[in-house]
Amino acid sequence: MKKIFGLLMSFTLLLSLVVPTASANPAENQDLAADKNIHVQIVLFDGFDLLDVTGPYEVFAAAEMYTGGKVTVELVSAEGKRVVPSGLNGPSLEAQAALDPKRSGIIVVPGASGKPAGHSDDSIPNILKQAKDTGLTRLMKQALNNKEVTVATVCGGSLLLAMDGLLKDRYAVTNSIGMPALATLGAKTVEARVVEDGPRLVSGGGVTSGLDVALYLVERELGPQIANAIERLFEYERRGTVWKAEGTTPMNFGSNAGDAPEKK
Amino acid sequence: MKKIFGLLMSFTLLLSLVVPTASANPAENQDLAADKNIHVQIVLFDGFDLLDVTGPYEVFAAAEMYTGGKVTVELVSAEGKRVVPSGLNGPSLEAQAALDPKRSGIIVVPGASGKPAGHSDDSIPNILKQAKDTGLTRLMKQALNNKEVTVATVCGGSLLLAMDGLLKDRYAVTNSIGMPALATLGAKTVEARVVEDGPRLVSGGGVTSGLDVALYLVERELGPQIANAIERLFEYERRGTVWKAEGTTPMNFGSNAGDAPEKK
Repeated sequence: MKKIFGLLMSFTLLLSLVVPTASANPAENQDLAADKNIHVQIVLFDGFDLLDVTGPYEVFAAAEMYTGGKVTVELVSAEGKRVVPSGLNGPSLEAQAALDPKRSGIIVVPGASGKPAGHSDDSIPNILKQAKDTGLTRLMKQALNNKEVTVATVCGGSLLLAMDGLLKDRYAVTNSIGMPALATLGAKTVEARVVEDGPRLVSGGGVTSGLDVALYLVERELGPQIANAIERLFEYERRGTVWKAEGTTPMNFGSNAGDAPEKK
Repeated sequence: MKKIFGLLMSFTLLLSLVVPTASANPAENQDLAADKNIHVQIVLFDGFDLLDVTGPYEVFAAAEMYTGGKVTVELVSAEGKRVVPSGLNGPSLEAQAALDPKRSGIIVVPGASGKPAGHSDDSIPNILKQAKDTGLTRLMKQALNNKEVTVATVCGGSLLLAMDGLLKDRYAVTNSIGMPALATLGAKTVEARVVEDGPRLVSGGGVTSGLDVALYLVERELGPQIANAIERLFEYERRGTVWKAEGTTPMNFGSNAGDAPEKK
């Protein structure tokens, strides 16, 4: 990897001698991003899904490493610093601070880990409902109204917001199991691994799509080189096209009418 | 998903009426696996990589859910029950018990999270060296000698074992960054996402390959249906062929001589 970067740097040096005004100069891009600091808050609540949290956490932590600290990431909860148990009697993680909806940056909302359906205490619908009742969605409403914040959801995280009406008429995705519920809760469901409703609301599908959500945001905020370096380190390649409500829409042949977003 | 299972069950029922002796009957397979209990120990050490641990953890926890408890999984450490910090100042996880190399089942050894190279305290080589010096590799040597145990490594986990000579002449893989070091430490390196040296030693490549290692072991021990259900729940598909020292070997055209395993 060092070798590749070495080659890139030599190439850059050569370019800067030959074409001093080249706008595709990687060194220039690096300078451009130099002023940008991005703080990421990842939300914990009782019964959260471990991988929904640790996937994005590790992507942003690697971005912190590769940018020399331009990205910072912390675990937060609605209640402040506390130890929070994950779902299915899984391991706990410690929230370091209270979720601050006024702080600019990215806020990631994970889903729950539990029985995929049913009405038991350890069912995902019940865990999400309990999380909603902690005041978390009230804070997330403030975050969604803050123009300096991008809200990102993973898996059931979009269901959690939708349960309090926060995704009404917004384009979003969740785990395929939860798509009918998400639609019932008023969101415009889109079958894609990552959906960008607008620059400030990005949702991901099932569990591992949290990696894709985080890698997409790293690319969007810091450019492709950091995202690519993380992909190589993790031996993971982001999949699929990030869906956005723009460009030419495909003709609808009626085969997937239930899932196609309504015409605007 | 319920619908698919419902369809499967109806199909099974139909099959059992029409072809009562069919050996491909899913219900029969389920009965076959009914006696099998699998305990998984995932090892923590100071500076472990969070995703190397949580990826396999969540796969085995989902297997526990889908089998109604035939699989059990716990976090362990060489020292016993304690809170263990992950690398790069990341979150801690609590080991619930001491690593028991005498207990049958699967033991997963993760890699470290830190600077990919260099000699600083937070470099991956230094973190692994410190983990080796805790007595962890002594316990893992006992595990490797226990015929009832499958040892699985993720990312730098194979380097950790190799540092104490435990992978001498064994087929293994690690993160692509660590492959030259793994070869220097005496392992026969193989470029594959998952490498099975034999039934009792399975290694994975970089970070996210831990998902593939765990899904492969779930399939190997419990059959494809549990592994497939987990893949759908996580929206993740295992990639690549699990490399084993069997079958026809490809002709070597000299282009990748450095990485091809030696002829036996």
